[in-house]
Amino acid sequence: MFHEKFREGIISAKQFDKDDIEYILSKSREMIKKKNTDLLNGKILATLFFEPSTRTRLSFESAMYRLGGNVIGFHSGDVSSIKKGESIADTIRTVENYSDCIVIRHSLEGAARMASKFAKVPIINAGSGSGEHPTQALLDLLTITQELGSLDGLNIGLMGDLKYGRTVHSLSVLLSNFNVNAYFISPVELQMRNRDKDFLRQRQMNYKEITNFRKILNTLDVLYMTRIQKERFVDLEEYEKIKNFYIFRKEDLEDTKENFRLLHPLPRVNEISPDVDSSNKSVYFKQTFYGIPMRKAILAEMMHD
Amino acid sequence: MFHEKFREGIISAKQFDKDDIEYILSKSREMIKKKNTDLLNGKILATLFFEPSTRTRLSFESAMYRLGGNVIGFHSGDVSSIKKGESIADTIRTVENYSDCIVIRHSLEGAARMASKFAKVPIINAGSGSGEHPTQALLDLLTITQELGSLDGLNIGLMGDLKYGRTVHSLSVLLSNFNVNAYFISPVELQMRNRDKDFLRQRQMNYKEITNFRKILNTLDVLYMTRIQKERFVDLEEYEKIKNFYIFRKEDLEDTKENFRLLHPLPRVNEISPDVDSSNKSVYFKQTFYGIPMRKAILAEMMHD
Amino acid sequence: MFHEKFREGIISAKQFDKDDIEYILSKSREMIKKKNTDLLNGKILATLFFEPSTRTRLSFESAMYRLGGNVIGFHSGDVSSIKKGESIADTIRTVENYSDCIVIRHSLEGAARMASKFAKVPIINAGSGSGEHPTQALLDLLTITQELGSLDGLNIGLMGDLKYGRTVHSLSVLLSNFNVNAYFISPVELQMRNRDKDFLRQRQMNYKEITNFRKILNTLDVLYMTRIQKERFVDLEEYEKIKNFYIFRKEDLEDTKENFRLLHPLPRVNEISPDVDSSNKSVYFKQTFYGIPMRKAILAEMMHD
Repeated sequence: MFHEKFREGIISAKQFDKDDIEYILSKSREMIKKKNTDLLNGKILATLFFEPSTRTRLSFESAMYRLGGNVIGFHSGDVSSIKKGESIADTIRTVENYSDCIVIRHSLEGAARMASKFAKVPIINAGSGSGEHPTQALLDLLTITQELGSLDGLNIGLMGDLKYGRTVHSLSVLLSNFNVNAYFISPVELQMRNRDKDFLRQRQMNYKEITNFRKILNTLDVLYMTRIQKERFVDLEEYEKIKNFYIFRKEDLEDTKENFRLLHPLPRVNEISPDVDSSNKSVYFKQTFYGIPMRKAILAEMMHD
Repeated sequence: MFHEKFREGIISAKQFDKDDIEYILSKSREMIKKKNTDLLNGKILATLFFEPSTRTRLSFESAMYRLGGNVIGFHSGDVSSIKKGESIADTIRTVENYSDCIVIRHSLEGAARMASKFAKVPIINAGSGSGEHPTQALLDLLTITQELGSLDGLNIGLMGDLKYGRTVHSLSVLLSNFNVNAYFISPVELQMRNRDKDFLRQRQMNYKEITNFRKILNTLDVLYMTRIQKERFVDLEEYEKIKNFYIFRKEDLEDTKENFRLLHPLPRVNEISPDVDSSNKSVYFKQTFYGIPMRKAILAEMMHD
Repeated sequence: MFHEKFREGIISAKQFDKDDIEYILSKSREMIKKKNTDLLNGKILATLFFEPSTRTRLSFESAMYRLGGNVIGFHSGDVSSIKKGESIADTIRTVENYSDCIVIRHSLEGAARMASKFAKVPIINAGSGSGEHPTQALLDLLTITQELGSLDGLNIGLMGDLKYGRTVHSLSVLLSNFNVNAYFISPVELQMRNRDKDFLRQRQMNYKEITNFRKILNTLDVLYMTRIQKERFVDLEEYEKIKNFYIFRKEDLEDTKENFRLLHPLPRVNEISPDVDSSNKSVYFKQTFYGIPMRKAILAEMMHD
């Protein structure tokens, strides 16, 4: 049972099998229908953001309030005990006495996992370095399934910084539970790491690595974009040569299927032109909408009695 | 009807006619009587302070809790998505999915108006650059009417930085709906801007511009002070010459009418001597008190079903 | 009666006589049993942290939510009105209109006392400079009595920076109400200040000052550690010579009584080795647990009708 299996929290997308995903998607859909409940009345969520994140933090807080609970926490900039030299372990062993569940974001890849080793309460990984961001990937799946129905048979492109991008790491792992055709679209410098690809191959995921999304755009059902950061390039000439492959423009929409959907975890800078926003195919703001029912479902599983 | 007219939010004092003002003043007076209600039970207010403001932020948050609702938000210093380069439009289209109403403060004059163009939920302008601060002006009117009864016939001085001061901009616009005699008291460098005066003249407001408040102090019913900032002066000699006109001292109280009232939006630095605080004529801390019922009335109008 | 006596708040451990301490300990023990209540439903706590403190702030906030109340506030880094030059007195006279009780932390020793002079609502001192931190000392006593029963007859060492450490100041004052044998263990540079010792002698407290805790470790029932900061030493050679006296290591446990308890207000840096954590004698994380019922008891006394 989900509640039992995830008793220690949600650290990685690798914890999820297909049944777990279907279960939490179905719970999220129930949450869409009931805006407010008192399911977590009296419960306290702690949001420990060692690294800043407006969107994810506010999304968890909103979800917690919609469930009737309360929130304490800190966000980078006011982490005084850290400045005084406290370890993550000590912070967790303190805050677990103040709360019923801890959401943690940290710049180090293993931070959430380490926190869960020390904690008596469930830990939710809200982004750990370049590693994972499992709840984002879950809300991405909710968005895709709400828009397109089943995942099976879809052609899905993941594009951008696949090396350091934690959202695409978690999303590709979740997708490996389904019968999808994946395209990993990135500059050579920012390809998926070998260890990540090894895992996906073990799961017999069907994927191809390419650099130019326009070559396959007309076959895609979903394109999931992330930021490409200029500073990640050793060779700036290389960056200048390829950067246009990674900007989605209004004219690109013309090459897409009728049911094509464009996703992005946000925030975006300039990788999607603003004139793409008004298309029905652009669902990146819907993703922020679906973040609330997904996180309500997750928080409810973590804390309900 | 107020609720309908202000469905998109409160952006400017110019939205208000006399009936709107009377309506919201009357709703505020009802709120003074009921400290706590559950009118906004289950609702979420987002407070997006791109520019810092302890007082206004805490006032809105307190008002929201007194109505039974919850609050999410950020304040300058932890605005991570902004640092990542996100536009206001994208922030709004995200946060509207997390909340039922958005309070926004920003250093740019048109920020709140732009936010309201993109938002599906009501936007409340909590200070936009040197432009406006309409809810402060409404609580100022509540304070004056609670202290002195009717506005009509009052002699009201607005003093300080009339060029950049957003509270005096909004307050003068609200006052233009009433039959008051206004005095705009400031150094020549910091006089009300022409476009602001043009608007007030169109409304046939009766005002005079002067530099020394002591020349008319004994005729005033209300003096509304704001800070004068030394750094706004090109000619520091000029500043030294006139600075004493803009400090209110205990002895100044002797020249005032029995029902004279001294207001200030706070925070103050040294423009009102501390020994003036104990006078019954000093009502600047009462203004902070009246901020709660006014903001409760506003939030209730924006969010109740 | 406690409620009456502390109507203006909790500023100093010196306000407490033995009966007051026994009363609030007993109320705290009741709070351990009831995790959630609605005792402070509709009440608002303001947490004004002019100086950062993750632990104390989150502890008060969690306690307030467990009692059914709400929280507003700021923490260093976003104190905009202060940057604009506002005095503490003005901040208090503003925030008292937004809340039912104010928790204040400030880098100045007299800040909380001054705040209580101006406030209409109760003030709780959550750490004022090098002065006091009374609610920490109360939760320390709760921890000791829960672990060891009565305080009377105990040998209690307070170790570390006794000159600037506010927790040890408040704790020693509370302990002076009981029949304990105290050891003040510190480098000569960081001994308890004369004015503090004068007060304790007037109360006829039985204490000794020593520098090396290992000489008395086997006689102690309780060792209360705090950080020693290298930068406090004029003579670094002196620091190097003595620093090992102030690190508690696993082998030190062997020299302790069966019922020995090691406390620390946290955060710690390296003054307690991590391999000491797993001992039953280490209760510093239990202190964070007991912080919640103690602060619930305190908040309830301050705000209940």
